[in-house]
Amino acid sequence: MSQQPLSQKPFGRLLLTGAAGNLGRQLRASLASWAGVVRLTDIVDVGDAASGEETSIVDLADRSAVMKLVDGVDAIVHLGGISVDAPFDDLLEANIRGTYNLYEAARKHGVKRVVFASSNHAIGFHPVTEVLDKDASQRPDSLYGVTKCFGESLSRYYFDRFGMETVCLRIGSSFEEPKNPRMLVTYLSYRDFIELVRCSLFTNRVGHVVVYGASDNPIKWWDNTKAGFLGFRPRDSSAQFADRFPVTAPTAELPDPEQRFQGGPFVLGEPMQ
Amino acid sequence: MSQQPLSQKPFGRLLLTGAAGNLGRQLRASLASWAGVVRLTDIVDVGDAASGEETSIVDLADRSAVMKLVDGVDAIVHLGGISVDAPFDDLLEANIRGTYNLYEAARKHGVKRVVFASSNHAIGFHPVTEVLDKDASQRPDSLYGVTKCFGESLSRYYFDRFGMETVCLRIGSSFEEPKNPRMLVTYLSYRDFIELVRCSLFTNRVGHVVVYGASDNPIKWWDNTKAGFLGFRPRDSSAQFADRFPVTAPTAELPDPEQRFQGGPFVLGEPMQ
Amino acid sequence: MSQQPLSQKPFGRLLLTGAAGNLGRQLRASLASWAGVVRLTDIVDVGDAASGEETSIVDLADRSAVMKLVDGVDAIVHLGGISVDAPFDDLLEANIRGTYNLYEAARKHGVKRVVFASSNHAIGFHPVTEVLDKDASQRPDSLYGVTKCFGESLSRYYFDRFGMETVCLRIGSSFEEPKNPRMLVTYLSYRDFIELVRCSLFTNRVGHVVVYGASDNPIKWWDNTKAGFLGFRPRDSSAQFADRFPVTAPTAELPDPEQRFQGGPFVLGEPMQ
Amino acid sequence: MSQQPLSQKPFGRLLLTGAAGNLGRQLRASLASWAGVVRLTDIVDVGDAASGEETSIVDLADRSAVMKLVDGVDAIVHLGGISVDAPFDDLLEANIRGTYNLYEAARKHGVKRVVFASSNHAIGFHPVTEVLDKDASQRPDSLYGVTKCFGESLSRYYFDRFGMETVCLRIGSSFEEPKNPRMLVTYLSYRDFIELVRCSLFTNRVGHVVVYGASDNPIKWWDNTKAGFLGFRPRDSSAQFADRFPVTAPTAELPDPEQRFQGGPFVLGEPMQ
Amino acid sequence: MSQQPLSQKPFGRLLLTGAAGNLGRQLRASLASWAGVVRLTDIVDVGDAASGEETSIVDLADRSAVMKLVDGVDAIVHLGGISVDAPFDDLLEANIRGTYNLYEAARKHGVKRVVFASSNHAIGFHPVTEVLDKDASQRPDSLYGVTKCFGESLSRYYFDRFGMETVCLRIGSSFEEPKNPRMLVTYLSYRDFIELVRCSLFTNRVGHVVVYGASDNPIKWWDNTKAGFLGFRPRDSSAQFADRFPVTAPTAELPDPEQRFQGGPFVLGEPMQ
Amino acid sequence: MSQQPLSQKPFGRLLLTGAAGNLGRQLRASLASWAGVVRLTDIVDVGDAASGEETSIVDLADRSAVMKLVDGVDAIVHLGGISVDAPFDDLLEANIRGTYNLYEAARKHGVKRVVFASSNHAIGFHPVTEVLDKDASQRPDSLYGVTKCFGESLSRYYFDRFGMETVCLRIGSSFEEPKNPRMLVTYLSYRDFIELVRCSLFTNRVGHVVVYGASDNPIKWWDNTKAGFLGFRPRDSSAQFADRFPVTAPTAELPDPEQRFQGGPFVLGEPMQ
Repeated sequence: MSQQPLSQKPFGRLLLTGAAGNLGRQLRASLASWAGVVRLTDIVDVGDAASGEETSIVDLADRSAVMKLVDGVDAIVHLGGISVDAPFDDLLEANIRGTYNLYEAARKHGVKRVVFASSNHAIGFHPVTEVLDKDASQRPDSLYGVTKCFGESLSRYYFDRFGMETVCLRIGSSFEEPKNPRMLVTYLSYRDFIELVRCSLFTNRVGHVVVYGASDNPIKWWDNTKAGFLGFRPRDSSAQFADRFPVTAPTAELPDPEQRFQGGPFVLGEPMQ
Repeated sequence: MSQQPLSQKPFGRLLLTGAAGNLGRQLRASLASWAGVVRLTDIVDVGDAASGEETSIVDLADRSAVMKLVDGVDAIVHLGGISVDAPFDDLLEANIRGTYNLYEAARKHGVKRVVFASSNHAIGFHPVTEVLDKDASQRPDSLYGVTKCFGESLSRYYFDRFGMETVCLRIGSSFEEPKNPRMLVTYLSYRDFIELVRCSLFTNRVGHVVVYGASDNPIKWWDNTKAGFLGFRPRDSSAQFADRFPVTAPTAELPDPEQRFQGGPFVLGEPMQ
Repeated sequence: MSQQPLSQKPFGRLLLTGAAGNLGRQLRASLASWAGVVRLTDIVDVGDAASGEETSIVDLADRSAVMKLVDGVDAIVHLGGISVDAPFDDLLEANIRGTYNLYEAARKHGVKRVVFASSNHAIGFHPVTEVLDKDASQRPDSLYGVTKCFGESLSRYYFDRFGMETVCLRIGSSFEEPKNPRMLVTYLSYRDFIELVRCSLFTNRVGHVVVYGASDNPIKWWDNTKAGFLGFRPRDSSAQFADRFPVTAPTAELPDPEQRFQGGPFVLGEPMQ
Repeated sequence: MSQQPLSQKPFGRLLLTGAAGNLGRQLRASLASWAGVVRLTDIVDVGDAASGEETSIVDLADRSAVMKLVDGVDAIVHLGGISVDAPFDDLLEANIRGTYNLYEAARKHGVKRVVFASSNHAIGFHPVTEVLDKDASQRPDSLYGVTKCFGESLSRYYFDRFGMETVCLRIGSSFEEPKNPRMLVTYLSYRDFIELVRCSLFTNRVGHVVVYGASDNPIKWWDNTKAGFLGFRPRDSSAQFADRFPVTAPTAELPDPEQRFQGGPFVLGEPMQ
Repeated sequence: MSQQPLSQKPFGRLLLTGAAGNLGRQLRASLASWAGVVRLTDIVDVGDAASGEETSIVDLADRSAVMKLVDGVDAIVHLGGISVDAPFDDLLEANIRGTYNLYEAARKHGVKRVVFASSNHAIGFHPVTEVLDKDASQRPDSLYGVTKCFGESLSRYYFDRFGMETVCLRIGSSFEEPKNPRMLVTYLSYRDFIELVRCSLFTNRVGHVVVYGASDNPIKWWDNTKAGFLGFRPRDSSAQFADRFPVTAPTAELPDPEQRFQGGPFVLGEPMQ
Repeated sequence: MSQQPLSQKPFGRLLLTGAAGNLGRQLRASLASWAGVVRLTDIVDVGDAASGEETSIVDLADRSAVMKLVDGVDAIVHLGGISVDAPFDDLLEANIRGTYNLYEAARKHGVKRVVFASSNHAIGFHPVTEVLDKDASQRPDSLYGVTKCFGESLSRYYFDRFGMETVCLRIGSSFEEPKNPRMLVTYLSYRDFIELVRCSLFTNRVGHVVVYGASDNPIKWWDNTKAGFLGFRPRDSSAQFADRFPVTAPTAELPDPEQRFQGGPFVLGEPMQ
């Protein structure tokens, strides 16, 4: 990993973990406009480094590698780790040990801001007949969700103890398009996702805050009013995709809990062995 | 009452009570596009049955008639009963016994969803200087309002006990146009009313919920944020009618309570004999 | 019904409905010390009138009889009506029409205070793992509970509209002794019941308020802090009866909802025909 | 001060204090369209009186002068007093004694509505990472802010005791344009300020209410949902000015409290001697 | 005012304002056991100085006198000022200018803790049918109450800005015995008053907090649960005095607002001229 | 580990983890009276098995050993793991992997109730000037506290997903006697600790709940009202130990954060390497 010279952009150097993933790839171009150097990393190859980019392959569970990774960065967008349900031992390495390694390295290197990709699965066992705000209690819908709760708790500690600020993004479903009726509710367009990260990085003070990542969709399970100081206003909506999913009378065809809770199919998973 | 064959529309058969009333007539055409068969009923004649319609004259206080009325329907839009203040004995038959008959029949026939026309008069004794959400306490402004509270309580029971879902619509003033300054606040356009019923019927899960029925008027007494999972977004506003009611300085010309409470003139009524 | 002369006790004349019932009989002696004349009524014979007592047999559903019954009283303790689940038509006469008759008669006769025996069954579908205060939403566990909700709504109206004050007693289980493990939680000793009525009658202003009727039992589902202005402090406890019910490990032997909700066996009832 | 004849406009006569100040000058033209006579006053000369205007120079600390000033007015827009931090003795005369004089005169003359220019500095010690509504506790950031809290408390008393209604405007930063990054959040355009005063004057009933004065800016510290009965909807936004303040990474360059609290530089002031 | 040498008691020197008043006299002996030196002051003579006491006559409105008064003290119990309703100009000098002088002097001398005698009249316009906790909004019932709200706001500022801690005591009625039925609710025995001051002085951290001063009386308007970190537990009760006030049926004999609001007769006062 | 025959006590077999620790030793005798067989385990030797006891040495991080450990038990009291701050890798094995292993084994063996020793350090970064209830947000004061938050999140998941109930005990300081002034607040006598476990085991339904473990100490940071359905009433108090810690004026002698936050010295720790 060769280090790039810093430029005159707002950030000197930004670190993006999970850069090879779906959302990491979406964010890559925008980061280049915000930081002189963008350091991209993932557990797999992130592709060739463009000008102003630094790339590396790092396992977040490798403490000393993470320590080096964080050296010299001003802020971190932490999308890395496992983003689906998985055996606990895998989640523990990637999402628990990995997130700890990242925060502890950030503390030692004096990083002041982290944007942490939490997930709607941290609150997926709330009923679909409730609207949640940032103070809703954690109700994870899966072991994956439990590890996201861990990241939220850990980052709360690093803020209260060391003043390191974190925006926890409880991201809905950020894909090109909604793939099923549930995603008409949870859809976060790529453009809105990028805007959410931008607000999370540039707001002067954020403290430790939870914000939900959804576009301005017709149906709303989440209310970001209390996070209004971030200035996030989604511009897209799933409404344009509504006609892909034929309207039906209320039905219990899917397994019942899948329809009753915000986590959707996650609430039917079981710990993998 | 002859039964129609079912079609491929989202609902097989929808029942509309109060079909001869003001709002029932507005809704009739829309229902036809949502259900293969629309069963229309009222205590008075609802007019000729169009194709796909079934019509009947039923007194909701007649238990056995109601039992037959509900047979074979998938969901009910319950606008029936008395919608103004009236002697208690009349309200008791139409709104208390009638609503009980309807719910009990629905339970026996396995109906899973009711859209219940409650009223802003269930909360009309809240001051006009408060903004209410769905958790506001009941404060009926009339015996009529008390019977709407009964409907809300009864439907809560049928949901908690039998899982029958109800959306309680606390409808403001749904007319062609606002007729007085108060209706600039409580106005619900016909188009928005129909959309509210549509959301209430098609949202996959609603549990038991209260939602206020008002268009996107400039002055707001009611906040539907917590019912955001219904996806109701009014598109009309009373703003276009504002110039019909000349602006005045605050005045006590009307009897005072009529101006202090959301229920307007209802709060000055007395039990009829 | 012959009328007694008034004395110098705090109340001139108190009306007690449901005087022949379990709780009515407990209260009878105390009322005599608070009022010059105690008017006792029930749908069945209440026994011989002692000195200072007036007795009558009245069906609360009989409007003109109720109108006469209320004539000349200063305050009412309304225990009358049906206090168990029953067919809806019976509940409707006794608890809905009857309570309306009583309030409307009270209004016409200028009565200023009613102590209304509501019931824990007005909120019986709240889980046993919640602690409720007076602002808990109504969640009736039976049609009986629905009629108690009606009484609470009706009395709210009579207060907001006419200033007639009501204390709604959500009574737990007021018997000589707890009869089952649930009653260790809901037990209200007779002495504490009488004290609760006393506070409800003598507190100078009560507005419209809900208070839970339970002794100072070890397990608490209800919190009366917000009704502290009534001055009710239970002196008894079910602790002395605890050893009658052998301690067991948590079990699902009883039908499940009966253990999950505060209403106990009521939550398994069905509308009677 | 010669008195003008009243006209047929909604208000007969409106009093504007602080008429020579920045916001007073903005409001002057609008007031003329709402009232037959506009009485303009300040501690300095307010310029020539146009048709329908009455002008005077009055020190609000002068009780008898204020008593005369209020004679004959229907409502008051109270922008007068000191609107920056200042030595306590000066604030005491202008903002405490002056506001008392105004309210007491208004009471004696039967004025029913006051629009009071409170300030965001009444709540400036709330963190920038919170979103406040009208029920947020007072946390003044300066002695100036403390005197605004006094005005809010005093007006609450005059409402509870005498029914005189007040809308307390917690005004952000109302200038031609935002002058620094903080004002991108607190900006209230002149047009929106005038609309806010209009809503405060014309809403039929307002009781005693707090409303925040900010345009529809991207970043929101304040939530007016609970004051929705005023009908205030800002139409402007600071977004158009955002590019004047270069985007930067979060920084601690400014003194730390100035960035942590909503009051901005006010939170670093000290009592002036 | 001669200065005493400090001793080994917990506090070196405590300042008591209002030392000649009813509560000041009660507290005097206790203070001697907590501080090596007790500095006693009032606007009238406080009597001869005992050993370990310093006495002086100071008008709190005299800034330079107050500056000297505060020199060398560790903490202040501020009972001084006017404790009944009075003409505004008098209240302004004693309770507004005087309290400002005291806080500003305390800041300059580095005093870290003030126990401030606020009053139940800061919230006296809340209905007697509500139970208030420390977060209840200010609703003063008199100009006197408004000045107590000022003291609460001012002390909030001095805490947020300078870290000077204050416990605001919303004292009920602290007399030898309750003098009327209202005081059965608001009674604070002298012993409990002293204990409340003791907790307020000795608790390690108090921040800025409001606590209600009432004994463990049967009827409760105030709930100190949220101030439980102060460790205040009243040991007395007005119950022993209850029989002095004959029990009556609810009555409207007293002017109505006097019975409806917590402030009692204060709510009927008018600004004195 | 040899298996004992079950008896007629309420529980057939109870598992106690952390049996060799301070609290485990306190609990041992009581468990024997509640269960036919008590299975005691720790990572170190728990001493000789008495009659009715089964003992074993198990590392909770050893999944297959834990699976065997849980076989045949009715309920679990989980005191095991590390109960002080420690290097993250150690905490991760004992408190994260270990707790997961225990819950997953419990699920597979159909265990329905776990009493989980969480800690006040899960909320230790709340200020000492707040009183917390069970809904207070997690604010861990150490990595140890973060792992307790993990246990709370994980157990929430196992309840929402599989119906396995957990009582999370946020234990204060349970020792023979308070050892410093902070423990006067956080003290939980052994007797009260045992009673808290007893309530947690025997209450019929507990769902997933947080309860604070403190005796009835004079100063209260925690309010268990909302967990009143557990029936826990402490009988002891730290008051008897108060004179061991001399009363002092408020002081900043200890490092400041140690006095400002509920976690005490924990809030000054740093991640161990």
